[in-house]
Amino acid sequence: MKQFVNLLDLPSMEETLNLASKFKKNPFSEKEIGKHKTLLLLFFNASLRTRLSTEKAARNLGMEVVTLNVNDAWQLEFEEGAKMNLDTAEHVKEAAAVLSQFGDILAIRAFPSLTDKEKDASEFILTSFRKYASIPIVNMESATLHPLQGLTDAFTINELKLKQRPKVVLSWAPHTRALPHAVANSFVETMQQQEVDLVITHPKGYELNPAIVKDTKVVYDQELACKDADFIYVKNWSSYQDYGKVLNTDPNWMMDLDKLGNAKFMHCLPVRRNLVVADEVLDSDQSVVTQQAGNRTYIAQSVLYQLLKNILL
Amino acid sequence: MKQFVNLLDLPSMEETLNLASKFKKNPFSEKEIGKHKTLLLLFFNASLRTRLSTEKAARNLGMEVVTLNVNDAWQLEFEEGAKMNLDTAEHVKEAAAVLSQFGDILAIRAFPSLTDKEKDASEFILTSFRKYASIPIVNMESATLHPLQGLTDAFTINELKLKQRPKVVLSWAPHTRALPHAVANSFVETMQQQEVDLVITHPKGYELNPAIVKDTKVVYDQELACKDADFIYVKNWSSYQDYGKVLNTDPNWMMDLDKLGNAKFMHCLPVRRNLVVADEVLDSDQSVVTQQAGNRTYIAQSVLYQLLKNILL
Amino acid sequence: MKQFVNLLDLPSMEETLNLASKFKKNPFSEKEIGKHKTLLLLFFNASLRTRLSTEKAARNLGMEVVTLNVNDAWQLEFEEGAKMNLDTAEHVKEAAAVLSQFGDILAIRAFPSLTDKEKDASEFILTSFRKYASIPIVNMESATLHPLQGLTDAFTINELKLKQRPKVVLSWAPHTRALPHAVANSFVETMQQQEVDLVITHPKGYELNPAIVKDTKVVYDQELACKDADFIYVKNWSSYQDYGKVLNTDPNWMMDLDKLGNAKFMHCLPVRRNLVVADEVLDSDQSVVTQQAGNRTYIAQSVLYQLLKNILL
Repeated sequence: MKQFVNLLDLPSMEETLNLASKFKKNPFSEKEIGKHKTLLLLFFNASLRTRLSTEKAARNLGMEVVTLNVNDAWQLEFEEGAKMNLDTAEHVKEAAAVLSQFGDILAIRAFPSLTDKEKDASEFILTSFRKYASIPIVNMESATLHPLQGLTDAFTINELKLKQRPKVVLSWAPHTRALPHAVANSFVETMQQQEVDLVITHPKGYELNPAIVKDTKVVYDQELACKDADFIYVKNWSSYQDYGKVLNTDPNWMMDLDKLGNAKFMHCLPVRRNLVVADEVLDSDQSVVTQQAGNRTYIAQSVLYQLLKNILL
Repeated sequence: MKQFVNLLDLPSMEETLNLASKFKKNPFSEKEIGKHKTLLLLFFNASLRTRLSTEKAARNLGMEVVTLNVNDAWQLEFEEGAKMNLDTAEHVKEAAAVLSQFGDILAIRAFPSLTDKEKDASEFILTSFRKYASIPIVNMESATLHPLQGLTDAFTINELKLKQRPKVVLSWAPHTRALPHAVANSFVETMQQQEVDLVITHPKGYELNPAIVKDTKVVYDQELACKDADFIYVKNWSSYQDYGKVLNTDPNWMMDLDKLGNAKFMHCLPVRRNLVVADEVLDSDQSVVTQQAGNRTYIAQSVLYQLLKNILL
Repeated sequence: MKQFVNLLDLPSMEETLNLASKFKKNPFSEKEIGKHKTLLLLFFNASLRTRLSTEKAARNLGMEVVTLNVNDAWQLEFEEGAKMNLDTAEHVKEAAAVLSQFGDILAIRAFPSLTDKEKDASEFILTSFRKYASIPIVNMESATLHPLQGLTDAFTINELKLKQRPKVVLSWAPHTRALPHAVANSFVETMQQQEVDLVITHPKGYELNPAIVKDTKVVYDQELACKDADFIYVKNWSSYQDYGKVLNTDPNWMMDLDKLGNAKFMHCLPVRRNLVVADEVLDSDQSVVTQQAGNRTYIAQSVLYQLLKNILL
């Protein structure tokens, strides 16, 4: 594997999940592979789980870790041909080339603007770094995708499923702020490649990008959608059609024990209690959000391991 | 030892001090015990000495270290049952559970509000993390206590004392800002268990929490209190009775060579020169503040070692 | 070597460059020397390259690394005898002494004010730390000097030069903000000790400190200065005489392919495209800025190695 920007970069999703499983059993079994190698983590947006799990994954493999919060240091220019006489102090061409001098893998988090649909769709930050960096790039959540989370969710469902082909529901929930589509997109993309019955539910106007949803079943009635589910993954996102807008904050869409039924409750965290999901759900045994968060480490470790393997070829 | 929130958590103060002494002589003698273990340091307030000494202690034991400044990332909710539709992005229930997935020991610094006496006394931040984390908690200065500092102060006095039972004075000093009681409280609590003659001196209105002071001698006349002292520990704190208020900034309470006599001068640092203590004191050979700061490492190492021992049982 | 504040601290510039060359070939050849040693990096100003390269250099030598952004934590007092009743929370006397308890080498970045010429010239921050720290100091760019950069530039020129005595031009370029003289000063000082023909070019009013320039040739006509150059080092700086002022932003001083001729293009980065230098230059094969940045690691490693050697004597 030469990079990990989206799921298509994986030689095999199954192998990636198996490897994560192996690392969960024995996190330090490949501690030699990362010796004298450095992972750079570049955050354009704050992070807790992603930073901690990716750092831990790298250290489990024996790598050095350097974490950079971009906005602490300088503002980057991404425009080709820009005359840089205003606020930006360095062009991504130099930044990407220079970072490549000091690390062996470059992991990047860069959220969308949620104001410029086309620019966000172009993934200009991640794409620019891919173009100008000479080391492998890892997507730690970009404008439209969060594949490390999607893989973790598949991994967690595999750990917990009690039947061969569980029913999995992705349910929108209300939120006061406009949130990205990345987690929902990557969950849908991952589930489409797993042996599950996937149903998406959300209010009208919250349709995800049709290029992602494809022929996945969408049900606008949340209760109906959740009926007999084995896993319910709850997540807010802003409107995609009316790009980045909050059209609906209807509290009836909050997940509660009634709608949850016997399903396991999943969420990528952080989650706002009693807005997105009721206390009674998060505090119940059906919630698997902590296990989900913990699994992030092993998926990141699986991805980094495959990149290191390729570097050392 | 299962956690280190206050002095009562120590199986033995004497053993803790002896262990610190051993680590000061040979800091890397137990470098194997922390292998593949991670210390998370969580700061709700800025830190220099505490961060550096605790990180160094952990590395001396072979641990990995991850330092998080909470306010860089997100605002936590601590209220049970809160509907999180305002500024807080994550509840401590999730934060503590998730951090426990990525580390083996969680060290926390969380200062008091100094506006809500009851809430501060409840130590709601530390208490919440204790309740919801599944890994041991270390107090790196909480609303009311700073036991790592108290132990360090005892350790330093033991290193320097020339008589079996030295006279030790805790003297209030003026400051322009309202400061917490944690350092003073923990110094008093630690000294009460050491073989010393302890005297506290401060202006009227600056009485510390009586539940801490107990029957320790309080003298309102600073000169009298300091007479023939072997160690004078200087520290400002705000009023406890008139909670969090600055009632007095009388420059006569600043420590100087006259009042110091032949005593050693102690302070936890940082210290404001010529407000809390005169240059002539800090620049004299009687000041032991640098040695005190350096000793923080070995006390932290002693505490972390005992926690690791218990984890590995 | 007991410290690295300026080039005069080096026992031998040639040996320092040779050592860097050795480390570039085999970065981990001296991984044992830094075992159980800690490098503290103290930044009064933001940094990308300097932080990454110095950290990497230290890790290549087996050191632990701790990076501190001063302004995140507290404001330091530098004035002798100050009554600290305002904003500063700790005097450099304590800060330097305490940092010396937790690290083995202390690297510092502290830019000039560009408003107080005399104070900047006194290098009061670096000088204070030298005075009160008990461990070696490394200059990671001070008010007037950036010797790690100067050495890196000499190293890069040595790698690339095709003749025994190349012509090297330091050319001023326009910028919208007032920038320090440190990079230009250290480039001049280093080149004066190398086998090169050095020419400085800038508009009138941008004369560098005469104590640094000495008898180095200055040509006010940029095109003439650049003629037949082998290396052109471009850098903006503010006026030294009219201290810290931006007197000129004439776009004709921007470096382009015409003026560059067959020379290699050098810059310390970050660089503002199409203000300091045209895209056509940076995007051409004649630009060696990435190689320059990468070489920072090996110069830092050479310097740290020499300091460690002395510590271990």
